[in-house]
Amino acid sequence: MPDPIDFYFDFSSPYGYLTSKRIDAIAEKFGRSVTWRPHLIGAVFKTTGSQPLLNIPMKGDYARRDIPRTARRMGVPFRLPERFPFASVAAGRAFYWLNDRDPGKAKDLAKALYHRAFGEGEDISGGDSVVAVAAAQGIDADELQAALADPTVKERLKHEVEVAVERGVFGSPFVFVDGEPFWGNDKLTEVEHWLETGGW
Amino acid sequence: MPDPIDFYFDFSSPYGYLTSKRIDAIAEKFGRSVTWRPHLIGAVFKTTGSQPLLNIPMKGDYARRDIPRTARRMGVPFRLPERFPFASVAAGRAFYWLNDRDPGKAKDLAKALYHRAFGEGEDISGGDSVVAVAAAQGIDADELQAALADPTVKERLKHEVEVAVERGVFGSPFVFVDGEPFWGNDKLTEVEHWLETGGW
Repeated sequence: MPDPIDFYFDFSSPYGYLTSKRIDAIAEKFGRSVTWRPHLIGAVFKTTGSQPLLNIPMKGDYARRDIPRTARRMGVPFRLPERFPFASVAAGRAFYWLNDRDPGKAKDLAKALYHRAFGEGEDISGGDSVVAVAAAQGIDADELQAALADPTVKERLKHEVEVAVERGVFGSPFVFVDGEPFWGNDKLTEVEHWLETGGW
Repeated sequence: MPDPIDFYFDFSSPYGYLTSKRIDAIAEKFGRSVTWRPHLIGAVFKTTGSQPLLNIPMKGDYARRDIPRTARRMGVPFRLPERFPFASVAAGRAFYWLNDRDPGKAKDLAKALYHRAFGEGEDISGGDSVVAVAAAQGIDADELQAALADPTVKERLKHEVEVAVERGVFGSPFVFVDGEPFWGNDKLTEVEHWLETGGW
């Protein structure tokens, strides 16, 4: 069984949301699985001199047009939350807490959180809103609420973000196929081609 | 006859070079022509808080891997010039000077300059090197040398850069199809799809 594909994404990234809709299906075509790895792109903004995409003059205007246009082409529902950019720390913590118990359920939770944020345009920044989405997936609300405040869980996300930075992940989405890095939703065609050919 | 496609590019942009290898053929499939419009991406670096791509921590390392990889996939020769990033003002001035006389020859010159810079990895930053490439294309060296110092020609490029900024062009390559903007070499598949469908 070949290694899983690593899919890095930030829960507050619209392009990460778009990639989340396709990455598993692309991998499956080539008998590959995908490890979902939420991170926090803000962690490298200082290093790369960047800032939240939609706040950048000119580039932000373009992205506001390109994101819904790309979503339409992909047939994916899209609605930008009123509060944007938003904090994705609670979502990331909830994901890794659940992932250590049941990776399948964690992936379902990630999909539900992304849908809530960018399919419906609702707020998922606060712990309460994350817990509400999780509860609708059958996750115990009290347990998750406690986990979000647990230093071990906080440390877990922090560690994952550090690993992402060490691996050179500076944006979202960011995909590794057998160590080969691909940045951006627009790279999915190349990701697929790499999987198909084994590289070029 | 439908409007031409606008292809904005900076002569010092590797991704612009890659797009230059495909844009005409893509347009031609749909009976469209392409207006080549060199600009200077540095003009908006202050506005967007950006800097030359390969100088950006993390992102630069990624680009150094992605550019040759994309070139290999496209079957395009690629070699990064030793002096990079480099000034592209002389190349831009030469282009517009020639373009006002013979757009076909200007496009050929652009291709030759791009080939020199990123196909062979040679320096095209100085006026002399631009004139040498142009002379090999049958352009009068003395005339071009004089044009590069002509205030009218300088103003011509400056004006084109200003128009580009007004149109929201913040990167290279940047393509408009019937007013619809597409940024980046990775967007060529969507450019093609837009031409095919008339938009979505």
